[in-house]
Amino acid sequence: MASIFTKIINREIPGHIVAENDHAIAFLDINPLNEGHTLVVPKKEIDKLFDLDEDTYLNLQAFTFQVAKAIEKAIPCLRVGVAVVGLEVPHAHIHLIPLHGMHDIDFGRPKLKLSPQQFEDIRQQIASHL
Amino acid sequence: MASIFTKIINREIPGHIVAENDHAIAFLDINPLNEGHTLVVPKKEIDKLFDLDEDTYLNLQAFTFQVAKAIEKAIPCLRVGVAVVGLEVPHAHIHLIPLHGMHDIDFGRPKLKLSPQQFEDIRQQIASHL
Repeated sequence: MASIFTKIINREIPGHIVAENDHAIAFLDINPLNEGHTLVVPKKEIDKLFDLDEDTYLNLQAFTFQVAKAIEKAIPCLRVGVAVVGLEVPHAHIHLIPLHGMHDIDFGRPKLKLSPQQFEDIRQQIASHL
Repeated sequence: MASIFTKIINREIPGHIVAENDHAIAFLDINPLNEGHTLVVPKKEIDKLFDLDEDTYLNLQAFTFQVAKAIEKAIPCLRVGVAVVGLEVPHAHIHLIPLHGMHDIDFGRPKLKLSPQQFEDIRQQIASHL
């Protein structure tokens, strides 16, 4: 069965898409730790990030680099942090999280509740730097 | 002043070095979240990961990819997770953390205390796969 991320890639379910190329997509995390929390996902549906072939991994990282720099320009923060866990959705993904403090990367803490308009505003701000 | 990581790179202070090339180094985190927790560090001393130039970033990621795969072979775990925070040491670094559950990446939780022999055994296990 297609992962929830593949359904976003295929426009079967909506996503707040920030950027896309032939091999990868970036969209806002619907349960963000901080405003601007973005997921970068390879279009190839593979569970574990380090099971990608090296070329696909490096293409994904080149895309991630551009998206992270756009987030740092768009969202006031100390810097953009990175996390890869991947035990909930079996489709490799990289979390890019604007950081305001040391302990922002803790998936056990409560997620933000944002309105559709807030997601759209954040999406546009990040996309405008890409 | 040279960062603590530059001092490890220059062998001014000891480190449990797993792998090294001209541009990057990987060594065990001295305050590990889990056994096999490794830091990958560019030799160029720059604070923020996404301030590296793109070529250096991608070279670092190619090295990270190889180290992560070696850790997955050497250390029993569900997979290797990734974290970049960087608010404590102003020298960009990527945490590679063998995961046993969803909430392993939480820098607020207690760190493991390992003996010098345990660090050396883990170092050798990972290095043997590189």
